[in-house]
Amino acid sequence: MKSLLKLCLTLAFGTGILLHLSAQSSIMGFSDDAAKKQTALEQKLDENVQANNLDEWMKYMTSHPHHVGSPWDAKVAEFIAGKFRSWGYEVKMETFNVLFPTPKVRQLEMISPTPFTASLTEPPVEGDPYSAQTDEALPSYNCYSIDGDVTGELVFVNYGIPADYEELERRGIDVKGKIVIAKYAGSWRGIKPKVAAEKGAIGCLIYSDPEDDGYAQGDTYPEGAFKNDHGVQRGAVMDLPLSPGDPLTPGYGATDDAKRLDLDESPSLTKIPVLPISYSDALPLLQALQGPVAPDSWRGALPITYHIGPGPAKVHLKLEFNWDMRPVHDVIAKMKGSTYPDEWVIRGNHHDAWVHGAADPISGMVTVMEEARVVSELAKTGWQPKRTIVYCAWGGEEPGLLGSTEWVETYADDLVKKAVAYINTDGTSRGYLFAGGSHTLEKFFDQIPRLVQDPKKGITVYERRKALEKFRNMPSADGFTLSALGSGSDYSSFFQHLGIASLNLGFGGEGNGGEYHTMYDSYTHYKRFKDPDFAYGATLVKVVGRTTLRLADAEVLPFEFTHMAKTLEKYVDEVQKLTDNLRESTAKENRFIRDGVYEAVNNPNEPMAIPDIKPDVPYLNFAPLENGLAAIQKEAQAYDQATKQRMPDLESMHRLNQILMHIEQSFTREEGLPRRPWFRHFVYAPGFYTGYGVKTLPGVREAIEERHFDEAQEQIGILGNLMEGYSMQIGKASALLVKP
Amino acid sequence: MKSLLKLCLTLAFGTGILLHLSAQSSIMGFSDDAAKKQTALEQKLDENVQANNLDEWMKYMTSHPHHVGSPWDAKVAEFIAGKFRSWGYEVKMETFNVLFPTPKVRQLEMISPTPFTASLTEPPVEGDPYSAQTDEALPSYNCYSIDGDVTGELVFVNYGIPADYEELERRGIDVKGKIVIAKYAGSWRGIKPKVAAEKGAIGCLIYSDPEDDGYAQGDTYPEGAFKNDHGVQRGAVMDLPLSPGDPLTPGYGATDDAKRLDLDESPSLTKIPVLPISYSDALPLLQALQGPVAPDSWRGALPITYHIGPGPAKVHLKLEFNWDMRPVHDVIAKMKGSTYPDEWVIRGNHHDAWVHGAADPISGMVTVMEEARVVSELAKTGWQPKRTIVYCAWGGEEPGLLGSTEWVETYADDLVKKAVAYINTDGTSRGYLFAGGSHTLEKFFDQIPRLVQDPKKGITVYERRKALEKFRNMPSADGFTLSALGSGSDYSSFFQHLGIASLNLGFGGEGNGGEYHTMYDSYTHYKRFKDPDFAYGATLVKVVGRTTLRLADAEVLPFEFTHMAKTLEKYVDEVQKLTDNLRESTAKENRFIRDGVYEAVNNPNEPMAIPDIKPDVPYLNFAPLENGLAAIQKEAQAYDQATKQRMPDLESMHRLNQILMHIEQSFTREEGLPRRPWFRHFVYAPGFYTGYGVKTLPGVREAIEERHFDEAQEQIGILGNLMEGYSMQIGKASALLVKP
Repeated sequence: MKSLLKLCLTLAFGTGILLHLSAQSSIMGFSDDAAKKQTALEQKLDENVQANNLDEWMKYMTSHPHHVGSPWDAKVAEFIAGKFRSWGYEVKMETFNVLFPTPKVRQLEMISPTPFTASLTEPPVEGDPYSAQTDEALPSYNCYSIDGDVTGELVFVNYGIPADYEELERRGIDVKGKIVIAKYAGSWRGIKPKVAAEKGAIGCLIYSDPEDDGYAQGDTYPEGAFKNDHGVQRGAVMDLPLSPGDPLTPGYGATDDAKRLDLDESPSLTKIPVLPISYSDALPLLQALQGPVAPDSWRGALPITYHIGPGPAKVHLKLEFNWDMRPVHDVIAKMKGSTYPDEWVIRGNHHDAWVHGAADPISGMVTVMEEARVVSELAKTGWQPKRTIVYCAWGGEEPGLLGSTEWVETYADDLVKKAVAYINTDGTSRGYLFAGGSHTLEKFFDQIPRLVQDPKKGITVYERRKALEKFRNMPSADGFTLSALGSGSDYSSFFQHLGIASLNLGFGGEGNGGEYHTMYDSYTHYKRFKDPDFAYGATLVKVVGRTTLRLADAEVLPFEFTHMAKTLEKYVDEVQKLTDNLRESTAKENRFIRDGVYEAVNNPNEPMAIPDIKPDVPYLNFAPLENGLAAIQKEAQAYDQATKQRMPDLESMHRLNQILMHIEQSFTREEGLPRRPWFRHFVYAPGFYTGYGVKTLPGVREAIEERHFDEAQEQIGILGNLMEGYSMQIGKASALLVKP
Repeated sequence: MKSLLKLCLTLAFGTGILLHLSAQSSIMGFSDDAAKKQTALEQKLDENVQANNLDEWMKYMTSHPHHVGSPWDAKVAEFIAGKFRSWGYEVKMETFNVLFPTPKVRQLEMISPTPFTASLTEPPVEGDPYSAQTDEALPSYNCYSIDGDVTGELVFVNYGIPADYEELERRGIDVKGKIVIAKYAGSWRGIKPKVAAEKGAIGCLIYSDPEDDGYAQGDTYPEGAFKNDHGVQRGAVMDLPLSPGDPLTPGYGATDDAKRLDLDESPSLTKIPVLPISYSDALPLLQALQGPVAPDSWRGALPITYHIGPGPAKVHLKLEFNWDMRPVHDVIAKMKGSTYPDEWVIRGNHHDAWVHGAADPISGMVTVMEEARVVSELAKTGWQPKRTIVYCAWGGEEPGLLGSTEWVETYADDLVKKAVAYINTDGTSRGYLFAGGSHTLEKFFDQIPRLVQDPKKGITVYERRKALEKFRNMPSADGFTLSALGSGSDYSSFFQHLGIASLNLGFGGEGNGGEYHTMYDSYTHYKRFKDPDFAYGATLVKVVGRTTLRLADAEVLPFEFTHMAKTLEKYVDEVQKLTDNLRESTAKENRFIRDGVYEAVNNPNEPMAIPDIKPDVPYLNFAPLENGLAAIQKEAQAYDQATKQRMPDLESMHRLNQILMHIEQSFTREEGLPRRPWFRHFVYAPGFYTGYGVKTLPGVREAIEERHFDEAQEQIGILGNLMEGYSMQIGKASALLVKP
């Protein structure tokens, strides 16, 4: 096959056919001839996808709880490895031993004014046999909470993010020495104990309020899909915005011989004990609070007046964990590339779950497997990918992206050389295609949803998504837009640590649920409320399968820079506006303080503290960003023009692809972001105080938000340099396309 | 006294002093000399106000329930009349016999799926002895509901306004033959049974959801101020936007010899039986509903998933009323004017309540009484008002503005000739001054809050209000702005029926409560949560007292037209934008329908009907409004200039005042608004589908909103003519000021 493909290429270039790298009518990165073949291949892909495989595999893999270290976790990894092997892949099981604490003692009681002991249990529900497998499951807890035995008055802190503590301050409420209770949502969960500890709290409870996740959304499980009064969201609370992965081997692979930190040296563990609880366990605690009534926007859907406290509710929280080392199993399956075996297209999803994990992560895992199966079927017809395809089933994602991070840290040197792109999925449902990723891939990806039919609506996945944007009055760009990626799934170490261009894909918007990280994320729940016939799962295989195959087979890698330039322009504009708005709002607030406006509107019956005068916001020199942007815009245009020229010879093309696949790394820097060197990408990062939520141009943006203006100015210089470097790489790519 | 005042006037004019009618430094409508005297008078007003009178009178008048027809209602009227008499006023008790139904049978039960009988009772609460006077009180009901005995499936209709029925339609839900349950709020309560009946429902329940009125706001009574789970909002449900007043004498006074309609001829009664209930009575009914989950924005704060139905909840509602005639007592107290006895400044508040009515209406009633007392004290010092002051304590406001409407209808001929202005208060609390009214009075009123101190903050009432506007980022006009008046209190017949310039004043924003129209609107509640020391009540006396006294004593009535012109400009702009927006949104919706956007975003698991294509919105000829506005702007400017001229002689001044006091009537028309001739003011009216909420330029605006574009065009012509007429009256006024 290799020789035949080479022949095709030779023919294409020999006869002087133009490469329509940018044309919508053809396939980006493919010559016309190659595009025809690719289209035929994709038709076979579509024909081969079988939804019932997804169903069958999910049913098997979710038949028992399979958290890290459980017997069924190993079985699931072996099952996946066995499947990959049976489809002809070269399979390696990579196992890392990592710190994985599990609960030994979980105790929460109110000691006054009314004694109450929290149940901390999720009872089995009728019609869902999986929910009765409590013996095999981990009870609800937050992973990487420290041990603790604390007693204190309770304070309700809304979502427990920094803005909420400003509201508390205005009411003269200090959480020092108190135990806080925060609602889930509003930030990633790990932010809540982090901020609480910064403010001096000694313990943290997190509960799912029915307003955000429960009966306010719809009927609760098992009548409906939504979170019932005993459902508890488990989840990791390590300091993820600092770095994901094994807390004892930060920044390097948790190999057998790796040096491990002592437990008390790890920067990732929480500083205070933290426990997630259900809304039935939260209700008596919140009901017993007095003190100021919570602001309107803090209110949930419990049938009470929400008070802030502190107290008189006084609670006792006792947590002890087994601080054990456990194995996480990554299944790595390769199909070698015919032409460029050292260019890797990596496609992954995790397989570990908090309990049964039907939606999260198995719904996505089965799409990777079906894609791999179909690709192996295609390979039986004589086709072979030009580049190596690597299918990955990650272990230990739930506690902190452990499996993918340790693998990436272990093989970092190889990956920065060989990885073309990383394509991730995780839980998926039904409805609309969502896609996030590097904007160097936006124009490439845009072609794909236009070719795939929505399984229920008789229009393409693309048309459906654009209709939604119209319906919601979203500013509608031409084409399919990618969102920026923060964190929360396995792309993080590829993208933000190594600067490998990544995508994260899935369907959603029409499945219902409150099962996330509970005992009720079961096959039964998935079949009733998510994607009952796996029609959208099968559609996702068609979307992602095309993405993988095109990246594997493109003659010229379909990386493109005008979309990145446009997106960066937006971000640069945003950080300038952010500064201007902060300057105006600060000046206005200071004026209000000086003019007595706050004093005049201060309700004498519910007085609040007047805020302090804040230093004026200076004007920053944004020229480095503007110059960097201008350079990228210019080079992106030039490259766009260059791709319309006659192609260079094969040797130059190889060199071109080598430049293209590494170009995202120009946005990274060995030193990483301030105070979190693991995060090296200077365009995309999870927010330091959002956790999963993305902050674009994070070094600059967060320094402005936190009012560290000297640092902001420094970061502008650093980012400007990176942008210049990125533009130079584009220039090098263009030079290979343009005849001298 | 009369001669002395005349002398002053003569002196002022004789010596050629300019009348600073517009200057902020002096008092509008007063010469400099007169302004000095007025300032001294107002100082005496301030010195004489005694907050403890308000407290003492409230305590007495609210010591028993005093609804229309109750023994204590008559006692209260006599008490007020006695006080007025003791202060030297000429007092007349005007009694009208009106239809006032009271409950005989009230029965509400759920017959399936689970039997439940609504309690329909408000139990006494600890610490509030008044709440135990249940024997003297009317039970909770909606006044002017018809009798009925209906059984049907229940449908939850959100607030029960027209937009809510559009949502129901999209879900294929019809209320024909059903009983609807609507939340209080979102419109005046009478709109709910009106719209329900239009849609074919056979019965209507209205409940207070704790989201809008209950524990979601704060602690409930008696722990806190807010509505507890048994509190029920009583209230009238007559078709108020059609006309207020006695349902058997629409448009004319309910005098002894008046011709009365038969009960079944009255257009004002509801078409279906309607009953208000508490949220504890509503909970089991709503909980038993199934069918589609209600949209997010419909959700309340009950701890359930809100479903729409219909059914399976099936309810039986039986209502029978005593259809009795009852007396309403208006107390009318006059102090005759020295110079212009036939120019009346009218100042009123109602005295009847649904139960004890401490906040509504006695908190306002006691400010009228204290004002009258202080004015009588001033009169003892030798001062006498130039114009006649008429203090009114209205009966029967609660069932439908009965007392004020019957009085106004009875004396309409006199009033259109003699009334200068009507100044209303109703319930009042603490916090910020609110004021609504005719914008011919805006510039005049603006001077007053600048002179009165907020009792708690060491700044003026004006400064506090402007600080609030700044704090809330409200578009801040120069000066104190008046809101436009809809309905809901006794100014309605003066203002909207006869075109007498009116004001409605009070304090609010810092008192808490859910007592409105419940058994718990007691002295105890008021003293704990509203205005405990009556400091704001006393301040209101100072504000309104000034308003009354200045209108009574002004040499030239302080009516002014540039503010009206500016306000009309805004309204004219609004109705044009409304049309444009409606055109655009209609075109967009039609495009979405044609382009399949609605179909594309229709969730196959929760399908909704696609809306029908609507006729395009035509372009209307707004020139008549623009020309009318231009004429008013021109004449308003000219009058403003003219007031800076030397004054005419006394005779001309009298003629000038005669023009000024009748000028608001130029906006009225005998034929009234379409389908509701009682409402004659073409600038301000309560909305046909909002009930209390104002619709400015109602003929035009509502025709556009209802997509009756032919009628809109016709109304534009009518309003344009009225505006031309108004401008001509201003011209006549100017002519009297400008020397030929």
